Amino acid sequence: MGEGLTDAVFRPGSVAVVGASSKVDSPGHDYVRSLVDFGFRGPVYPINPRAAEIAGLPAYPSLSAVPGEVEYVISCIPADGVLALIDESRAKGVRVLHLFTGRFGETGKAEGVALEREVKERAATAGIRIIGPNCMGVYDASHGMAFRPDLPREPGDVAFISQSGNNSVELMLHGAARGLRFSKVVSYGNALDLSEADFLDYLADDAETRVIGAYIEGTADGRRLLDALRRCARAKPVVVLKGGRTGAGSRTAASHTAALAGRRQVWSAVLRQAGAVEVDTFDELIDMLVAFAFLRDARRTTDDRQQTGGDGRASVGVVGGGGGRAVQSADVCEEAGLRVPKLPDAIRATLREKAPDLADWVDNPVDQSILAGSAVSGARVLEMMLDSPAFDALIANVGEDWVLGRPDAIERMAHLVDRFAAIGRQARKPLAFVLGPADSPDETKWRAVEGGRRRLTDARLAVYPSVDRAASALARFMVHRSWFTAWIAEGAAQ
Amino acid sequence: MGEGLTDAVFRPGSVAVVGASSKVDSPGHDYVRSLVDFGFRGPVYPINPRAAEIAGLPAYPSLSAVPGEVEYVISCIPADGVLALIDESRAKGVRVLHLFTGRFGETGKAEGVALEREVKERAATAGIRIIGPNCMGVYDASHGMAFRPDLPREPGDVAFISQSGNNSVELMLHGAARGLRFSKVVSYGNALDLSEADFLDYLADDAETRVIGAYIEGTADGRRLLDALRRCARAKPVVVLKGGRTGAGSRTAASHTAALAGRRQVWSAVLRQAGAVEVDTFDELIDMLVAFAFLRDARRTTDDRQQTGGDGRASVGVVGGGGGRAVQSADVCEEAGLRVPKLPDAIRATLREKAPDLADWVDNPVDQSILAGSAVSGARVLEMMLDSPAFDALIANVGEDWVLGRPDAIERMAHLVDRFAAIGRQARKPLAFVLGPADSPDETKWRAVEGGRRRLTDARLAVYPSVDRAASALARFMVHRSWFTAWIAEGAAQ
Repeated sequence: MGEGLTDAVFRPGSVAVVGASSKVDSPGHDYVRSLVDFGFRGPVYPINPRAAEIAGLPAYPSLSAVPGEVEYVISCIPADGVLALIDESRAKGVRVLHLFTGRFGETGKAEGVALEREVKERAATAGIRIIGPNCMGVYDASHGMAFRPDLPREPGDVAFISQSGNNSVELMLHGAARGLRFSKVVSYGNALDLSEADFLDYLADDAETRVIGAYIEGTADGRRLLDALRRCARAKPVVVLKGGRTGAGSRTAASHTAALAGRRQVWSAVLRQAGAVEVDTFDELIDMLVAFAFLRDARRTTDDRQQTGGDGRASVGVVGGGGGRAVQSADVCEEAGLRVPKLPDAIRATLREKAPDLADWVDNPVDQSILAGSAVSGARVLEMMLDSPAFDALIANVGEDWVLGRPDAIERMAHLVDRFAAIGRQARKPLAFVLGPADSPDETKWRAVEGGRRRLTDARLAVYPSVDRAASALARFMVHRSWFTAWIAEGAAQ
Repeated sequence: MGEGLTDAVFRPGSVAVVGASSKVDSPGHDYVRSLVDFGFRGPVYPINPRAAEIAGLPAYPSLSAVPGEVEYVISCIPADGVLALIDESRAKGVRVLHLFTGRFGETGKAEGVALEREVKERAATAGIRIIGPNCMGVYDASHGMAFRPDLPREPGDVAFISQSGNNSVELMLHGAARGLRFSKVVSYGNALDLSEADFLDYLADDAETRVIGAYIEGTADGRRLLDALRRCARAKPVVVLKGGRTGAGSRTAASHTAALAGRRQVWSAVLRQAGAVEVDTFDELIDMLVAFAFLRDARRTTDDRQQTGGDGRASVGVVGGGGGRAVQSADVCEEAGLRVPKLPDAIRATLREKAPDLADWVDNPVDQSILAGSAVSGARVLEMMLDSPAFDALIANVGEDWVLGRPDAIERMAHLVDRFAAIGRQARKPLAFVLGPADSPDETKWRAVEGGRRRLTDARLAVYPSVDRAASALARFMVHRSWFTAWIAEGAAQ
């Protein structure tokens, strides 16, 4: 397997779960169940000396008792059994060992650190690559690999690498609600052998991955990470949430994954230099993955630069919602670094034909309540703005709150959203929608908002739960797009 | 009625809805229906020359045709009928006129501005106070006043004044999902007569209001607003979202409520000077209302100052969630201006008795996955931290994602949350919970999170959908508490 990382990590031919359990509420059961439920494409061998069958599969007392080949082992046994497991794996010809098993370097104890070192050496000698320890491992739905039965079954094109297991689960669940689907996800814990740089190198060339997210607490090789990030970021957008940015965060990272967190300024400089997008919170991470997955034209290779109005800022047009929303939209867009130009004369001229009373009143952002009862809909103005050279990007507030008060809220929402979705499908500029959050305690309202959001995400459109989050994501997206366009132009000139 | 504002505004004895409609999908119907559904405590008179009955009530062709007294009029007729309505109202002895009617100064047209001026003068001459124009009006559930049938029926102790109608609806719906209930809400639009200062003056003395929120786009009298804010902020916490902070926002505010938005720096200075809390987004507004409504001990009058660790920052203890969440919690708390001290020796000594292996490993923030399987629960550590003088405030991550993967997620969540809620009820320090968002497309997961959140909010506890929002709200809350404590101490010393 050499230095690099091959498909055996994400797509092994066979898997054994050592420490498999018939107790349904345990990781040793979850791994077997997940492989079964996701339809893993190869044999799955539960290993347990005291069970005949686990999750419907015949169990074996030991790795060596397995009749066929075993390429990949998931370890759920305690740390003190891992050295013997490596010996057994070597004898069986195993290529990859995923250690869900924790309690190594992260405990801060000398014996944990020493054991971790010995595991690393023994596995290297045996030619076995290690994922972890102290991690959830690999998700690749199209190959039937998953670490929890409730993760999305349908594969997608976003990859996520995470030094934290719970972050990987949260990202997939909350990301799925926003329409994200995943090509490959790996929770890699202490990164004893396979590291963030290995996974990034692999994902840079992975044809199934179009966008990459990462949660990284530390690195053992900053230079290699910079190289890997740089290569990735030039191939596809990369969004990084750095854990352990502060003194307290860095101390906590050490007890979580034994990571050397490093100084925030250094990390920010590395990420900027590499062309990666740095985010500070989990919500921002999801928001930027949504932006790169769904906003149109993330990576323009032509040189038709955005309308900068002479000051370098991208211009945004905003429609929808009432007057308060319009005011807030203007504020948060401008504060996010976007320019909010007035409605251009060409659009006013068209409006004047259909709604002469409103043509001089309505502006950008478009207050939907001004248009109410006129011959012009907010959706129609959105179309005009998409066609206008005055706007580089658009935000559409669905403005659902007035719909939610109606008894037929679900149908109305569907109707309202379908019109927006049709426009979104045709849009050739970045267009972000604002709808939600779907957090109502009232079931009808939850269904209305959730259903509306799903109609938009099914059309592969970017939906944000507030206009400030939409504005912030759109602004970062436009800055990244400028950087990428400039980088391409530079390359073409050389 | 004089200069001030009396109960007639929120609690009139009788209401007529002029422009009442039998069309269920219209404001003229909604107002009648809302008064009926909320059980308005007095007669409600729908006025419509072409209907015999509206929403089950007998309709009258005109105000003068109403047999009884009319104290309060809600106008849903077009702007060109308002002057005549004022004359009719004067003849009928009306005291308050709420103009849902819009299209006055906000249109930017000379005739709209002129009409608005005339309305103001004629109403003043008639001794009639105006709410609006261009607004939703008044909500006071305990008196049966409401402007939409789907607003919360149960009254509470948070007041909200808003220059925007859609903001008032959104705040109530999304706030209700977070457990907020409202004493009085008023959407006051163009503030032609009754202004933000009038409402604030009233709410400062309102015994039913414990916390005040405001969305303000502009003011006609900055000095009076400062005085009103100062008086309010010394009586109860006041949170202000200023609309029109930016150039584009200010332009938009003019076309929304004809407001003169003013410069951001001036507003920020005024709010700070008054002791109000300024927020920049709608989510922050809700988060701070939740903080002041539910965090313990918002207004200490004793002088036991918070533990500042010598650097003026409040100290926070964090429990719950896995290692990634612990690292993120540390980062966002420190970045929000809170101090994240190490676990004190006294707590380690107690831990050593029950879980000797973990006592030197576990730290603050407490990584729940370290405690898993030990004799110590995260909830128990939270109790110890609440008792420890090392922490001024606490954050508890419910860490629900591991629960959500289970078939019995709803029951497990209830069990998990009930233990936290019991601790929260006893807590004598500010304690914020992190749970959600409840945005899953999966019904079981939505029900589990929504149900868990409701168990916490029913116990009047503060719940945030992310740890960064909890940290930010808690940090602002602690700063405000310091200010208030210092102000009280100063007053006592004089």
